[in-house]
Amino acid sequence: MEGDPISALYTPALVVDVDIVKRNSDRMKERCQNLGVQLRPHMKTHKTLECADIMTGGSRRCIVVSTLAEACFYADHGYDDILYAYPLPFDKVERCAVLSEKLTLFQVLLDHHDALDQLRKRPLGEEKKWQVWLKLDCGNGRAGVLHSEPEALRLAQAISEADGVKLTGIYSHCGNSYNCRGVEQIQTVAQDTTTFTLQFIEKLKSLGITCKSSIGSTPSCSHPVTDMAKLSEVHPGNYTFYDVQQSVIGSCSLEDVAVRVLTRVISHCPHRNQLLIDCGWTGLSLDGAGKLPTGYAMIEGHPDLRLLSMTQEHGRVESISGKLDYDRFPLGSLLTIIPYHSCATAMMHPVYHVHSGGRLVERWTPTRGW
Amino acid sequence: MEGDPISALYTPALVVDVDIVKRNSDRMKERCQNLGVQLRPHMKTHKTLECADIMTGGSRRCIVVSTLAEACFYADHGYDDILYAYPLPFDKVERCAVLSEKLTLFQVLLDHHDALDQLRKRPLGEEKKWQVWLKLDCGNGRAGVLHSEPEALRLAQAISEADGVKLTGIYSHCGNSYNCRGVEQIQTVAQDTTTFTLQFIEKLKSLGITCKSSIGSTPSCSHPVTDMAKLSEVHPGNYTFYDVQQSVIGSCSLEDVAVRVLTRVISHCPHRNQLLIDCGWTGLSLDGAGKLPTGYAMIEGHPDLRLLSMTQEHGRVESISGKLDYDRFPLGSLLTIIPYHSCATAMMHPVYHVHSGGRLVERWTPTRGW
Repeated sequence: MEGDPISALYTPALVVDVDIVKRNSDRMKERCQNLGVQLRPHMKTHKTLECADIMTGGSRRCIVVSTLAEACFYADHGYDDILYAYPLPFDKVERCAVLSEKLTLFQVLLDHHDALDQLRKRPLGEEKKWQVWLKLDCGNGRAGVLHSEPEALRLAQAISEADGVKLTGIYSHCGNSYNCRGVEQIQTVAQDTTTFTLQFIEKLKSLGITCKSSIGSTPSCSHPVTDMAKLSEVHPGNYTFYDVQQSVIGSCSLEDVAVRVLTRVISHCPHRNQLLIDCGWTGLSLDGAGKLPTGYAMIEGHPDLRLLSMTQEHGRVESISGKLDYDRFPLGSLLTIIPYHSCATAMMHPVYHVHSGGRLVERWTPTRGW
Repeated sequence: MEGDPISALYTPALVVDVDIVKRNSDRMKERCQNLGVQLRPHMKTHKTLECADIMTGGSRRCIVVSTLAEACFYADHGYDDILYAYPLPFDKVERCAVLSEKLTLFQVLLDHHDALDQLRKRPLGEEKKWQVWLKLDCGNGRAGVLHSEPEALRLAQAISEADGVKLTGIYSHCGNSYNCRGVEQIQTVAQDTTTFTLQFIEKLKSLGITCKSSIGSTPSCSHPVTDMAKLSEVHPGNYTFYDVQQSVIGSCSLEDVAVRVLTRVISHCPHRNQLLIDCGWTGLSLDGAGKLPTGYAMIEGHPDLRLLSMTQEHGRVESISGKLDYDRFPLGSLLTIIPYHSCATAMMHPVYHVHSGGRLVERWTPTRGW
């Protein structure tokens, strides 16, 4: 298929504009270089080797992953300095130990004393220490010890004092930036998260403990505040693809969105003023429900169309106002969907079709599972 | 892992109770035998060879699929008499032609004159005819020509008269049975769909055209009405796994649900009265949002817990009333999720872990893509 136009693809198909991916990745690298902060890109959105190579500039070092399957996949392909930024799963301690012994730098994360006990019970061989990040909750409300709780300091201290364990850093994810609208709100969250994290680092210093600091999220790293220069690292991920959600938040413009789902018209339903497309939730995911005036996503070039609902392999498209002109959408004609959430949409596809200027250049195969 | 308890699995993991799958499949076979109607099981829920073998009783004949990838997968494994029950996608006509020429009986579906034109333009070799089902909309409101529209009869007649094409049957999917609550409502939809389909068949007979008839959906076939005996075929699919949704509809009891997602507690959040599990939407899908008092799914044995929200790899669980007793849910402890929609949940897993009585017996690998 190489060299063919993307319109030659069977649909539904996830297409990735590699030029936009490179531009998004370059911009994030520049932004971090200008700040003087280490970029540790997150792999969770795409989970492919090719996109990781673009994001790391070919260094194959300094990445963050959301599953151990990703960690193993990248380690198997020569990657190192991998941070598995997920509350240590007790069923996977042994696999984490093996990776820690195999790689130069494999790093885990925890937010509970019981997790530290798990590491203590499995000392690493080859005179290695567990490299541990403490997950801090700076207002996101998911994993992590609350930054303001005395427990957070106690746990950091316990990690730093435990035999065979090293407190590598303090890790905060500002997923609450996804509730923002516009740069000002994004930067308020970025500032708060940075401030709380750096204050925590200061408290540790006063106890004689030094370690790295990292915060992340695509919105905050797309519009960093100057204080983020004081951090050791940042760890955004979605920015390589972006999506409609990020454009609504204000992280990017729609022109920065690198992914589309190609779909075709498969049925006309004039009695309901609808048409059907061959993209259901297996091709797009159900993320985005109720979030956009255009339904589950945007249909490129057709602001008058709404993706009303999806079943497994069918999408129902209707006109937002007025009668559908079926002559504009004959059976078999292509429509292009801009996904609401590229992480969720990419997850549904066993292969991504990569193009440059609309011509297919390669296929990327993501890793899956846990 | 064979012989190990399912608790030995890394989580999240989709586990399938093969004894329940067999029981559900046997019951549907018996129900259809008693009615005297041909069962053509749908593969879309699981998309595996092993489960297909159970549903077809090892005959490897007479199935229905939702994607051409499934059709090719089953054809490659010796299956035949395959109905690709999807409005003919114009990009896949050539692949459909190849399958039609290769198999003894490959059947397509359409609901528009333009689709018939596509078939006419690609006559089959080896003196074969396209085997075509006409999709009829009997109130479901998705694909199909409205049963009451004169256009439906005209299209059926055109198919039956076209060179190189045979009108194999009339196909109605009563997906509107998913809005039902209880057997009475299910049987009302089943009766209406059956009546409209059979009336259409009668109209065709009066024009000198005879062909098969098929209706389906798991609710309607779980509680068939006697008139369904007059149909040629039925085509349910979800019944082999069932799920919480089907139990809410009234198709089955919770004891009939064959699938679970195993998950583990990964974090405690006492400041929010929540805990985190290692199952996000990558392990469960977002289907079920807002549908159940227990959130996105049910947590087996814990009616007091609600799966409040999910991100990519995290699930937030809270107590429906009162304080969470964290001693009951230590980090690393297993929880068992009964999915709201097994088709959507199975879709998220690259492999299914199959057990009998809680002991692992095999792994099923589904086909993916289109």
